[in-house]
Amino acid sequence: MSKPLLRAAVALAALVFVSAAGAADNGDPLPSWNAGPTKDAIVAFVTKVTDENGSGFVAPEDRVATFDNDGTLWIEQPMYVQLAFALDRVKALAPEHPDWKDKQPFKAAIEGDMKTLAASGEKGVAELVMATHAGMTPDAFQKIVGDWLAAAKDERFERGYTKLVYQPMLELLSYLRDNGFTTYIVSGGGIEFVRNFSERVYGIPPAQVVGSSIKTKYEIVDGEPALLRLPEMNFIDDKDGKPVGINQHIGQRPIAAFGNSDGDFQMLEWTTAGEGPRLGVIVHHTDAEREYAYDRDSTFGRLDKALDAAVENGWIVVDMKNDWKQVFPSAE
Amino acid sequence: MSKPLLRAAVALAALVFVSAAGAADNGDPLPSWNAGPTKDAIVAFVTKVTDENGSGFVAPEDRVATFDNDGTLWIEQPMYVQLAFALDRVKALAPEHPDWKDKQPFKAAIEGDMKTLAASGEKGVAELVMATHAGMTPDAFQKIVGDWLAAAKDERFERGYTKLVYQPMLELLSYLRDNGFTTYIVSGGGIEFVRNFSERVYGIPPAQVVGSSIKTKYEIVDGEPALLRLPEMNFIDDKDGKPVGINQHIGQRPIAAFGNSDGDFQMLEWTTAGEGPRLGVIVHHTDAEREYAYDRDSTFGRLDKALDAAVENGWIVVDMKNDWKQVFPSAE
Repeated sequence: MSKPLLRAAVALAALVFVSAAGAADNGDPLPSWNAGPTKDAIVAFVTKVTDENGSGFVAPEDRVATFDNDGTLWIEQPMYVQLAFALDRVKALAPEHPDWKDKQPFKAAIEGDMKTLAASGEKGVAELVMATHAGMTPDAFQKIVGDWLAAAKDERFERGYTKLVYQPMLELLSYLRDNGFTTYIVSGGGIEFVRNFSERVYGIPPAQVVGSSIKTKYEIVDGEPALLRLPEMNFIDDKDGKPVGINQHIGQRPIAAFGNSDGDFQMLEWTTAGEGPRLGVIVHHTDAEREYAYDRDSTFGRLDKALDAAVENGWIVVDMKNDWKQVFPSAE
Repeated sequence: MSKPLLRAAVALAALVFVSAAGAADNGDPLPSWNAGPTKDAIVAFVTKVTDENGSGFVAPEDRVATFDNDGTLWIEQPMYVQLAFALDRVKALAPEHPDWKDKQPFKAAIEGDMKTLAASGEKGVAELVMATHAGMTPDAFQKIVGDWLAAAKDERFERGYTKLVYQPMLELLSYLRDNGFTTYIVSGGGIEFVRNFSERVYGIPPAQVVGSSIKTKYEIVDGEPALLRLPEMNFIDDKDGKPVGINQHIGQRPIAAFGNSDGDFQMLEWTTAGEGPRLGVIVHHTDAEREYAYDRDSTFGRLDKALDAAVENGWIVVDMKNDWKQVFPSAE
């Protein structure tokens, strides 16, 4: 490279560098969050743990942040998305299972009888999950989930579910990662279900998803090695299962945790009880107009104990209606 | 410093500098590997999957490489390091358990009676593990393991175990990471045991360690949230457990797998049966002088079925004696 050319290249590089730094400086990394104490508290926490000269500095390798999925990163009303998937699968598979017509909870699932389904409780839902989520390889399951997500639409919002993620939370995930955090999903939902879209929707790769799981078996099928999903529970990543799942999977206690329901209580409790700066955040669904308003009496995403504990533990409660400028991503 | 000594020091410094610069520039990333077909095959694979214009290109997010630990990354003779740890723990805890003096397999462990211990089989070893690895928090366990690793020494080599890792494999881990791979440990050993040193010794963070585990329980102790390690097996990450553990933890099929025993057979089989370029590598312990020579008849790290399968499957067999210029890192 000639000398003038080299100098020009250096100048150009400097320019690129300066403008990149400028964008990072004046730019609001959380444009969908209204100004106020909630946003301030989040920014203050990130500023504190990334300030190398401050007393609250946390090394990048310890900046672990965990996020619940249903109700925290995407919609969970009028029912968990994975339950909608299971119900659709029951309907799709019904012709192969003529006995389901007269057998609960399948009958209720086929007829859309949500009352009977709810009455069947966790046991009923588990039966539906086993019948629809097992008996195939993880790859085949991914194909089924991917096809369903591409086609299914939420009735009220007339959108696919992966467009019913929360724009302010997408910004928060990016903001944390830009500040050296590793972001994990810690979901009560199925680990393989969430992995189908976690990378393309949230930027969270499969290995950074923790979730509930069924057992899997390694076997040789027609001379080819394969994994087979079995109709047997392996791990329930909910309530006190969340700290257990985090310890097993990540091997570190998070310094920040984000949830929205009593299923996240123990994750928030364990995270914020650690030493040094800690952040616990609860998304409170207060916006019936733009999304939903629910808490203590909800079937899905019930928020009761964790809401009471928030004050005592210094957890930030996001008031969706007032703290979020925008709920869902803008239409493309 | 005398003049001749000073001159010698300067010459040495220059030599070190030149060789360091040489390594960085023209660059043999695998200096402890002798030239030959083994090294060529590894480099050819990495070159192929990273060549954006080639037909074998693999996107960085799919460059997943999994490594067994015992016998692949560090020594496993005359017994697994974790077994040496368990035996030492039995001795340390024996005063609190007077009944162990007359109770197998504890009696054999205390007396160093390896024959009786071996005869107690997997059940006996599991009993020792439960008695020594459970009943405390993961943090407390980390402290115990860390203290032990800092003090314990291998008798033959008169070195701590974390200095009995394989220098060529350390170079391989770095080489793969420098080429956009994510490196995971997939060990039959305990996940929490391996996590104690994986980051500082191998550069592999806790979340990238897959291993066997015992169950853990979340509870509140004296008002503080805590995890408690229970004397109950959770998952055995060996043989057909390895593909299952990889799928559960990583959620992707590796494109390269490295092992040394029949415990790694299924991991290698599953990895190399996938589409596109695949690499399966077996470390064959052929060096009785510098390390150990063992395979089909060994109690620890038995290599029989996987050695036969290597030819058929195109797995690379590393001949430790001839392929490795150096086995352990140089003394500091």
